[in-house]
Formats: sequence, structure tokens, C-alpha cells
Amino acid sequence: MSIEKIKQAVRDIPDFPKLGIVFKDITPVLHDPELFAQTIKIFAEKYRGTPITRIAGIDARGFIFGAALAYELGLGFIPIRKKGKLPHDAYEVSYDLEYGTSTIEMHTDAVEEGDRVLIVDDLLATGGTARAAADLIEKSGGEVEALAFLVELGFLKGRAQLGGYHIFVPITY
Amino acid sequence: MSIEKIKQAVRDIPDFPKLGIVFKDITPVLHDPELFAQTIKIFAEKYRGTPITRIAGIDARGFIFGAALAYELGLGFIPIRKKGKLPHDAYEVSYDLEYGTSTIEMHTDAVEEGDRVLIVDDLLATGGTARAAADLIEKSGGEVEALAFLVELGFLKGRAQLGGYHIFVPITY
Repeated sequence: MSIEKIKQAVRDIPDFPKLGIVFKDITPVLHDPELFAQTIKIFAEKYRGTPITRIAGIDARGFIFGAALAYELGLGFIPIRKKGKLPHDAYEVSYDLEYGTSTIEMHTDAVEEGDRVLIVDDLLATGGTARAAADLIEKSGGEVEALAFLVELGFLKGRAQLGGYHIFVPITY
Repeated sequence: MSIEKIKQAVRDIPDFPKLGIVFKDITPVLHDPELFAQTIKIFAEKYRGTPITRIAGIDARGFIFGAALAYELGLGFIPIRKKGKLPHDAYEVSYDLEYGTSTIEMHTDAVEEGDRVLIVDDLLATGGTARAAADLIEKSGGEVEALAFLVELGFLKGRAQLGGYHIFVPITY
């Protein structure tokens, strides 16, 4: 099975979450056992045998791909969440949105000095959240080994926020 | 490794999310590659070879365990989310909280007639969300084969909400 079948399963949802936005809905990929397994295997093949020590997933769809990948690679999993969701001591990083700001957090004991972390999310859009996630890893003494997304919206130029990091995205629009 | 090591890793967070509540924090289980893998294997051993056709995870920690388990068992994964988060046509079910109500949703194309679904979440507390998730599965023509949680707070009597369903919880307080 090629990445093409996974790409065909991603569907456009016009005007979500607001008018004028075309949302890329990856849930059909999750619903299908073969497409879901194949997606995780594509990431696993890319990162098996690399020096990655932990996988961080961004709330909430990044949890789905990140946790399955961590399990497949035999690594620990780190949840990165919106402010106020994590119960223990946490580092936080704020970043700009179109209007206002948002803050994400990670437990202070999630990453140790010397850890090499793969950050996983479903979608690379403007790159703001991904960049903030990378800052969280570095704030806690870890290194960002790479960032992996299933889908990239190239026209939003999210890579510009992530200069200097390794980025892997099998599907680009 | 026994379930006892996983239980020891779950930590108490006093007064989270509010004063007087002792929150069970399962993130140390996720951070540790062996404990995380062992947790998924405990669920997989319980459900491998049963007639389950899909796994539904409840936003957000249920995504972590549910997605890794779906991957391990070679099944599709269904995200159940708070209202407004899913982009496509969705069924919704509302349920009572201590103060007010909450609504969760599932895509209308996530479950097909005849599907036998395992619902996964990290914690069984009052059972309100789990019961609403079961209602969502049945609303869409599926059967709830069982509900699986890593941790149960027995004193909250969540099982009373889930009468008639098979429930599996390796860790009880």
C-alpha cells in the first residue's frame, strides 16, 4: 500500500472550524485498520534505529499517532497539552495565534537532560504549535531530534517557523 | 512485570483539578517505555481473539491508550470528542456533570451496523462520560462489546452507570 491511498482517505471539510477554512479531516485514516497501521509503519520505518529516546504528541490528534508510534518503537510517550490540562509541575510556552495567544504545557519530569525527542502531530499548518512544542522540549534540557506530521498545508509556510529542525511529512497539499 | 509496578507509577495529585479532589496522574506510566508497553499488552491480551471490530478512545487520554491498542490489535480507531471538535457529521450525547451538562460527539461514519466496539479511557470515575460514549456507539448501530480503563476510582461507583456492560480495569483504588 502506498501513501497515495492514505492521502485519498483524508477528506476536505469546507468552512471548519470557521468560514473560509478547508479542514483536512484525517479520521477516515484512523477508522480504516489498514490505513491506520500503514501510517504508523511509515513513521516507524523512518525513525527505527535513530537515536530518538522519547516521543512527544501534541493534544489531541497527535496523541493518536504519537502513542501508537511510541508503542511500535518501544519508547515512552509525552503528552503536550493546552495550559491547565496537565496535573503536575509543567513548563509552559506561549505563542501567537491569528487573534490572541495560546499556551501549551509539558510536565517538568517528562524529558531528561540528553533526551532526543521526536514531536508528532497530525497536521503542520502555520507551525505555531509545533514551534512552541519544540521550545518546551529544549526548555527542559532535551534535544528535538525531528518533527513528524502526517499532513502538511504547504501554502501556510509552517516550515518557516521550524527552521533548523528535521521535518518529516509524507502528505503535502 | 506485574500490574503492581504500573500501579506504583500512578501518582496522586492533591487538589487537581480543584480543591479537595485527588487526581490520579497516569503520565509516569506513559513516560516509561516498559510500563507503557506493558499496559497496552495487558489490554491486548484481554481482547485479542475476541469479536471486537473497532476501538473507540475518549478524548484525550483515552486516545493514548486506545490508539496504541488499536494498532497492536490491527483494528481501526474512533475518536470520541467534546462537542465542536469533530469536523464531519456527528452524533452527540449529553450527560450530567456535578454542575451543568457536557456533550460528546462521534462521527456518523465511525461505526457501522454490526460493529462491536471496545471503548477505552484512562480512568473510570463517575462513569458519566463512559456511559455517554456507550450511548454514542449504540446510536450509530454498533454494539458495545466492553469498556476498558486503566484505573478505577471504586468509591465513585462509576460501574453503577454502566450496568449490563462488560468492564475491564486492571487497577482499582
